[in-house]
Amino acid sequence: MEAGGPVLVTRVNEEQALAVRAVHRGVEYHPVPRAMSWVDEKHTLAPAVRGTVAVVSAGTADIPVAEECCLTLELMGHPFERVFDVGVAGVHRLFDRLEGIRESSVVVAVAGMDGVLPSLLGGMVDVPVVAVPSSAGYGANFQGVAPLLTMLNSCSTGVAVVNIDNGFGAGAMAAMINRAL
Amino acid sequence: MEAGGPVLVTRVNEEQALAVRAVHRGVEYHPVPRAMSWVDEKHTLAPAVRGTVAVVSAGTADIPVAEECCLTLELMGHPFERVFDVGVAGVHRLFDRLEGIRESSVVVAVAGMDGVLPSLLGGMVDVPVVAVPSSAGYGANFQGVAPLLTMLNSCSTGVAVVNIDNGFGAGAMAAMINRAL
Amino acid sequence: MEAGGPVLVTRVNEEQALAVRAVHRGVEYHPVPRAMSWVDEKHTLAPAVRGTVAVVSAGTADIPVAEECCLTLELMGHPFERVFDVGVAGVHRLFDRLEGIRESSVVVAVAGMDGVLPSLLGGMVDVPVVAVPSSAGYGANFQGVAPLLTMLNSCSTGVAVVNIDNGFGAGAMAAMINRAL
Amino acid sequence: MEAGGPVLVTRVNEEQALAVRAVHRGVEYHPVPRAMSWVDEKHTLAPAVRGTVAVVSAGTADIPVAEECCLTLELMGHPFERVFDVGVAGVHRLFDRLEGIRESSVVVAVAGMDGVLPSLLGGMVDVPVVAVPSSAGYGANFQGVAPLLTMLNSCSTGVAVVNIDNGFGAGAMAAMINRAL
Amino acid sequence: MEAGGPVLVTRVNEEQALAVRAVHRGVEYHPVPRAMSWVDEKHTLAPAVRGTVAVVSAGTADIPVAEECCLTLELMGHPFERVFDVGVAGVHRLFDRLEGIRESSVVVAVAGMDGVLPSLLGGMVDVPVVAVPSSAGYGANFQGVAPLLTMLNSCSTGVAVVNIDNGFGAGAMAAMINRAL
Amino acid sequence: MEAGGPVLVTRVNEEQALAVRAVHRGVEYHPVPRAMSWVDEKHTLAPAVRGTVAVVSAGTADIPVAEECCLTLELMGHPFERVFDVGVAGVHRLFDRLEGIRESSVVVAVAGMDGVLPSLLGGMVDVPVVAVPSSAGYGANFQGVAPLLTMLNSCSTGVAVVNIDNGFGAGAMAAMINRAL
Amino acid sequence: MEAGGPVLVTRVNEEQALAVRAVHRGVEYHPVPRAMSWVDEKHTLAPAVRGTVAVVSAGTADIPVAEECCLTLELMGHPFERVFDVGVAGVHRLFDRLEGIRESSVVVAVAGMDGVLPSLLGGMVDVPVVAVPSSAGYGANFQGVAPLLTMLNSCSTGVAVVNIDNGFGAGAMAAMINRAL
Amino acid sequence: MEAGGPVLVTRVNEEQALAVRAVHRGVEYHPVPRAMSWVDEKHTLAPAVRGTVAVVSAGTADIPVAEECCLTLELMGHPFERVFDVGVAGVHRLFDRLEGIRESSVVVAVAGMDGVLPSLLGGMVDVPVVAVPSSAGYGANFQGVAPLLTMLNSCSTGVAVVNIDNGFGAGAMAAMINRAL
Repeated sequence: MEAGGPVLVTRVNEEQALAVRAVHRGVEYHPVPRAMSWVDEKHTLAPAVRGTVAVVSAGTADIPVAEECCLTLELMGHPFERVFDVGVAGVHRLFDRLEGIRESSVVVAVAGMDGVLPSLLGGMVDVPVVAVPSSAGYGANFQGVAPLLTMLNSCSTGVAVVNIDNGFGAGAMAAMINRAL
Repeated sequence: MEAGGPVLVTRVNEEQALAVRAVHRGVEYHPVPRAMSWVDEKHTLAPAVRGTVAVVSAGTADIPVAEECCLTLELMGHPFERVFDVGVAGVHRLFDRLEGIRESSVVVAVAGMDGVLPSLLGGMVDVPVVAVPSSAGYGANFQGVAPLLTMLNSCSTGVAVVNIDNGFGAGAMAAMINRAL
Repeated sequence: MEAGGPVLVTRVNEEQALAVRAVHRGVEYHPVPRAMSWVDEKHTLAPAVRGTVAVVSAGTADIPVAEECCLTLELMGHPFERVFDVGVAGVHRLFDRLEGIRESSVVVAVAGMDGVLPSLLGGMVDVPVVAVPSSAGYGANFQGVAPLLTMLNSCSTGVAVVNIDNGFGAGAMAAMINRAL
Repeated sequence: MEAGGPVLVTRVNEEQALAVRAVHRGVEYHPVPRAMSWVDEKHTLAPAVRGTVAVVSAGTADIPVAEECCLTLELMGHPFERVFDVGVAGVHRLFDRLEGIRESSVVVAVAGMDGVLPSLLGGMVDVPVVAVPSSAGYGANFQGVAPLLTMLNSCSTGVAVVNIDNGFGAGAMAAMINRAL
Repeated sequence: MEAGGPVLVTRVNEEQALAVRAVHRGVEYHPVPRAMSWVDEKHTLAPAVRGTVAVVSAGTADIPVAEECCLTLELMGHPFERVFDVGVAGVHRLFDRLEGIRESSVVVAVAGMDGVLPSLLGGMVDVPVVAVPSSAGYGANFQGVAPLLTMLNSCSTGVAVVNIDNGFGAGAMAAMINRAL
Repeated sequence: MEAGGPVLVTRVNEEQALAVRAVHRGVEYHPVPRAMSWVDEKHTLAPAVRGTVAVVSAGTADIPVAEECCLTLELMGHPFERVFDVGVAGVHRLFDRLEGIRESSVVVAVAGMDGVLPSLLGGMVDVPVVAVPSSAGYGANFQGVAPLLTMLNSCSTGVAVVNIDNGFGAGAMAAMINRAL
Repeated sequence: MEAGGPVLVTRVNEEQALAVRAVHRGVEYHPVPRAMSWVDEKHTLAPAVRGTVAVVSAGTADIPVAEECCLTLELMGHPFERVFDVGVAGVHRLFDRLEGIRESSVVVAVAGMDGVLPSLLGGMVDVPVVAVPSSAGYGANFQGVAPLLTMLNSCSTGVAVVNIDNGFGAGAMAAMINRAL
Repeated sequence: MEAGGPVLVTRVNEEQALAVRAVHRGVEYHPVPRAMSWVDEKHTLAPAVRGTVAVVSAGTADIPVAEECCLTLELMGHPFERVFDVGVAGVHRLFDRLEGIRESSVVVAVAGMDGVLPSLLGGMVDVPVVAVPSSAGYGANFQGVAPLLTMLNSCSTGVAVVNIDNGFGAGAMAAMINRAL
């Protein structure tokens, strides 16, 4: 905060957030991504960007991770568009939104369970795809290991992967790619 | 052979096959699936079937496993159709063949690397999908563990899985499903 | 619900179910499989079927998974028969029920711990076996990995596997196999 | 050898055995278990025993491990009986031999692939079962890990396990159990 | 209970035990091994035995598992002796008790963390050792996998292993070995 | 080739390359990355780019993977600069080259063994880092799993990961990032 | 206590500590490392030492483990210096403290997430480094397995590793190294 | 070589060594540890040391790793003593050599299979123990993972671990500890 921020703290529960807000009134709590943010309005971030980041997610259970990514992009001053709940089990929903995704400059794709979405997107769009495995699943999902492996073994080109549930890391990577040099 | 067959031996190399053929002339060797078969023509298999089995595979490296499945179906007297090299990296090739796949009574789907194909098929066809992970891949593929997990975690319904590289098991399961009761 | 259903939601606890029922009165909660279902009576499901599905389970701890399978079959309109608590530790109980199992058109076999049941059934019946590892066990069971591996390595033919504890997936696969084309 | 033996060396190939025999003429090589043995006839082993050890194996691929066990028992002076190729895929063969197995004082059960045999035996005999996973298998067998886990999670009582392919260890444990105190 | 018992139920918490005792007054709860037992005094078990079972454990954290083994032996009518807290970190305590252990007919050795105790015992006693890994430990212990692997790889002969924390299984195996045929 | 290329085939040995060259004379073999390439001079690739790609590698054993990345970039028409053998064991060599790396538009960082290099770079440069674990190492390296995990858990922001030894994938991702939109 | 101590008990929560202090008043509870200590002032420890131990940690989440190490050193009578929060994400903070670290006789380095710190230190200091992986992290961190592997594969010489979160073990090893013989 | 050495190259086979010696005559090849060394006599290493390093190994299969450690110590100018083949299966051999080990200033302990030796030594000596798991073993040894875990979970204090088969790393760590500051 002394450096002017912005500040983002992830993996915070409501009780912890309330304790911090008792001290720092300007801090905002975001219950879906379970994150806390603080922005100093005097330090408006307005980086030169290449375009819009498409934040695509497969199922409703992946939304907290996707929202952590969105919050990161917002704090870093990058425009983004949510394309949620377009996983492969109802693949027509993805096809309906494909044109919009193709106009973005970089795609973040969040998926749990079988983690198929980034592979499919990688084969259909022509911009970098940052893949985020989510821990949504059970049994042989192993808390996100299954989609992590699916994404690391993607047959499509232009796909790279961050840690399980790491919406922040995906947002930061996407922002770095999206920056106009 | 004493029981009239048919006989199928998998994971046989050419040298082993030659040694057997020196003793049993009627045995045939199939170099792609690396299998040996023997059929007694007097015992013609003609089971009542429900339809055709679609044997779908993702990449050229998956063909030996897919051919082991085809050979199994052939020996068990079930009609089948090959739909090879239609993986998700060039997903339009799959869409071109989709109509034919939908007319089958059961689908066998072989895929290595990210193992995405059965999930995608499961979302687009309305018959049982027997998924076979192949060991084609490297690194975090772990000799087929990555596609095995992808398939076990499939978001699509109507998908069940056999062991890595088990083309025979997939063929036998498909035949059992395809039998008219 | 707008589409007429039926609707099945799994992995629901009682508190969650009560919250939903406060809004949607017609929803039913099933405490054993921990699932919620909704059927619109106007949309009676009556698919043409091939026969009865035998839902076989090894121990009492596997019953929630087996019941999730039964509920799935019921909602999809398929007749089924419960054959519970016939695991290999008291193998004579399985032998007592074998005749009934053999008359079914497809078998679902649920087992935890060593996961031996589907292998044994696969060697004794002549219809497809959908194997479901349950997470019942401890220590080197690894929450169902042990029976999952047992089932994937089954020496018997006509066995395919779904995810650990995936009673729904097994029911859906069995229904798809059991449908008269 | 100086201590009078007997000596057993396992995991020896033919070339190594020939090199040893060039120096020690009395050494015998056993190609199936790939082991080398040496017995000093002056030191005849004749321990007091409780009965016969049944060495049971599931498939033909398990025979080298089973034979390593038999050789160990022979050198230690314990009577044993081979019951080979009675795995669960053709379970009637096991039932045909069951009476003989029940008359033994201890059972060694060797199985690869799904490793189901010791669980089944444990439920049907009333003496200790020493289970040996073999590395016969492929894919999700993981060189014997699958049957190892099956055996460690056995629902039957009176089963304990040795290392994968450890025919020697199983024989030594069986001999120790079989010794009349 | 209808069959006359004895009955042993493991992994029971106090609340569950109280609920059962409200119905079956004769049931006894054992808080250390967290087990419930019931014995019908009319059915006194008095099997012919070979000797005493030594139940040896490494640390105080292993005592619940060791006591589950003791309770099993007691219910099955076998004499046993506790030799607790003699792990390798204070190896002199083991040496002090060694003579007593050597006089037993079979040893059960429970150890968590590095699981070294059964290997050491196997090298110093001349009777069968049933090794039980306990889940006591943290980090790279992986809930008992570390001592499980130590025990499976024991360099000493006459050691066989049961599942992690399976005090019951070890007791049942020891009893079976200890029975006079 | 019919489509005009360029064509890149990875994981090719010399013998295979010679066989292809006997048929297609224009194909070139690259022994260090063990890859085969073919370019049609009429189809000169000259994409608009953002800058130079820095291909950084830790040890000499990582050079084949780094060279596979360089070859990919060359075929796709992107300028790149090699910064090899600057791993953390001799960290001053990295510091000597840091200025040049900072002027690139995207960094590819290849490292085996402990895989520390991308984390360190991520903390010192301000452009996206594509991390490639190599399988160079032994023991608890597990053929590249150790550096893969190091990279996925990087504390630095702006790091995303591709499969073990996947120099091609890293090059393609870097090219996609480096393209001027 | 009877032997005069000092006594250190780790992994104790506050409630447990209070229960002990009700009986033994002299026992002290340390909430950060969650440990309990007791020292008999009559038994002052004053070992001859070689120098100061530098206890270095990467992030704030690693402090409990680092403090367990400090407490161990204190009880064993070794001088130490805390160098906390100097992980690789803000590597300049490490460089600021480097001179002090170089003057120590042995370094303990605690790090979670990617576990990069000990490798980096190993390349920059000339005394033994005892590396402690902490379980701070998520996803593909696997509760400290990722930094454990990073440390075991360190390219730097003079690094050895203790168990995940084992601050006590690292302190004891450092003390043993630091003792003047 | 330009810097005056000494030079040590590990994991070299004879053919590679011959190729190097054709160019650099002074290079020496050591077939047991499979290493190549070069020393410039003008640069005699004579570090001030604290004492002798005891290099202890469990089985004959561990000798190559132990010898790699000895060679490292020799090149770095530290006195050492070999104590080989004293594993826990014949534990009296260890007791015979214990006095000598206790007089050393630091112990390196190499063990494969169950990896029990360093734990046992840690409980009996009063100097730092550097533990080296070797990959000698089979089955559930997993190429040295079993002894690695045993050593990381050692109940004894004063034990730290290096990578599997890393005789060089153990020697370098021991030398660093043994240096007189």
